[in-house]
Amino acid sequence: MREPAFHDMHDSAGRGYVVAIGGGEDKLGDMEILRRFAKLCGGKRARIAILPTASQLDDTGHKYAKLFRELDVREAYTVVFETRADGDRKDLLEELERADGVFLTGGNQLRLSTTLGGTPVDSALRHMCAAGRHVAGTSAGAAYLCEHMIAYGEEGATPRAGSVQVVAGLGLTRRVIIDQHFRQRDRIGRLLTALAYNPYPIGLGLDEDTAAFISPDNVVEVEGSGLLTVVDAHDVEVDSIAEAEKGALVSLTNVRLHLLPRGGTYNLLTREAVAAAKV
Amino acid sequence: MREPAFHDMHDSAGRGYVVAIGGGEDKLGDMEILRRFAKLCGGKRARIAILPTASQLDDTGHKYAKLFRELDVREAYTVVFETRADGDRKDLLEELERADGVFLTGGNQLRLSTTLGGTPVDSALRHMCAAGRHVAGTSAGAAYLCEHMIAYGEEGATPRAGSVQVVAGLGLTRRVIIDQHFRQRDRIGRLLTALAYNPYPIGLGLDEDTAAFISPDNVVEVEGSGLLTVVDAHDVEVDSIAEAEKGALVSLTNVRLHLLPRGGTYNLLTREAVAAAKV
Repeated sequence: MREPAFHDMHDSAGRGYVVAIGGGEDKLGDMEILRRFAKLCGGKRARIAILPTASQLDDTGHKYAKLFRELDVREAYTVVFETRADGDRKDLLEELERADGVFLTGGNQLRLSTTLGGTPVDSALRHMCAAGRHVAGTSAGAAYLCEHMIAYGEEGATPRAGSVQVVAGLGLTRRVIIDQHFRQRDRIGRLLTALAYNPYPIGLGLDEDTAAFISPDNVVEVEGSGLLTVVDAHDVEVDSIAEAEKGALVSLTNVRLHLLPRGGTYNLLTREAVAAAKV
Repeated sequence: MREPAFHDMHDSAGRGYVVAIGGGEDKLGDMEILRRFAKLCGGKRARIAILPTASQLDDTGHKYAKLFRELDVREAYTVVFETRADGDRKDLLEELERADGVFLTGGNQLRLSTTLGGTPVDSALRHMCAAGRHVAGTSAGAAYLCEHMIAYGEEGATPRAGSVQVVAGLGLTRRVIIDQHFRQRDRIGRLLTALAYNPYPIGLGLDEDTAAFISPDNVVEVEGSGLLTVVDAHDVEVDSIAEAEKGALVSLTNVRLHLLPRGGTYNLLTREAVAAAKV
């Protein structure tokens, strides 16, 4: 099978939505975020595959399958890739590939990258998304979606050299770096640090119960009860991290921030934010 | 200007060569590596732009311009992007864009990513390469070429969690992670660590005076007096880094290594190595 061209966000025609959720999405009330994802995947016709690879709990996948069934999708089922050898299993790959949408649970994002990276699974996920299928992830699952994945880092608002570990992720887009549990775990310092190393990606900091629906035409739409923090470092003038010792404070001037609640949008091509008229 | 699709190495038709040099390339003798790059760019017709952004020495760019002139290229000239604001200068971008080949000098790779990342320069370099122009880098310049750039790390043969810092690079390919001064600075531990975080990319460890010429059809050709160490972690069965504490030793089983001298090749699609018949 031929690997599709990597979808830089500038050339993503035909791609499915990439949906990043900041963790802790509502599961008892309206389930606004999960409901929107289910609808996106076809609602009553939707087949949703849940990948619990990030989690070490046996029931994580089944819990989400149950939630999606409550939302009246046609089918919601788990596909369990627990070891790298599972990534070669044709039966599991076929289960994955018949889905209209894929949902990656939370847990530890390094379990995703170390279990799926370089196996037929990560390639299948890129294929599916490039072909128009939608891929969502919550918490660790959200971190893994993009090309540059925050593996771990320090808490706090201060950017410091070495305070974040960025590694290779799934690669559905290289245009953004996603962070999650954003306000709850005070992560703006580590996201600023990641962008100081290379200001090319746009930082998306997602609060809990908050999602970024990244459309095929590269508009980020905010859903849920918290804020999306967009960090745009393209116009940065001073960036001291190249000369900073480990642990040193980092100078950054002219970072642009947007704080967007539900209904807000951010265009990744024009780098323009629009807050919703009503919240 | 529309950003080209990111060239995953599986879909790189029409792309130019990506040439990674391990630093310390011969400048007094036959200049085998620089000569091959000059020839690739058109020999007597070649216009080569040298970007000394990684270096903090004033004469680094001029030294390479002089060397390429000794190799009888039509034109070799420096284009100096020293600040992020320089990245918006139309006169400099035009100078860059008329080149048949671009050469990134050594220095500090974080000076490249922090100065050029997210400016029109990194976009222009991706465009040029996608359109068939060739891009070479030595030492820090080599590290920057790929999507996942090793910014810094510890020396030694032992992979340890947290011993390497990977950040976003230029992104001419996401298929490889490049390390340089490989044997001279004993860097196999940090390259193994980078691959443990996500086994997807193929590791290319370049000794000094050694180059990997990555062709548009994804074959790596070795040039120069040292070895290319290819690290293929696709068949890894056990990878412990997801659970490892910072500084802990990392378990990895079934890593495949290839040590290739001049004339050897490695196919990034089939993952097959061929040593040259004669060295």
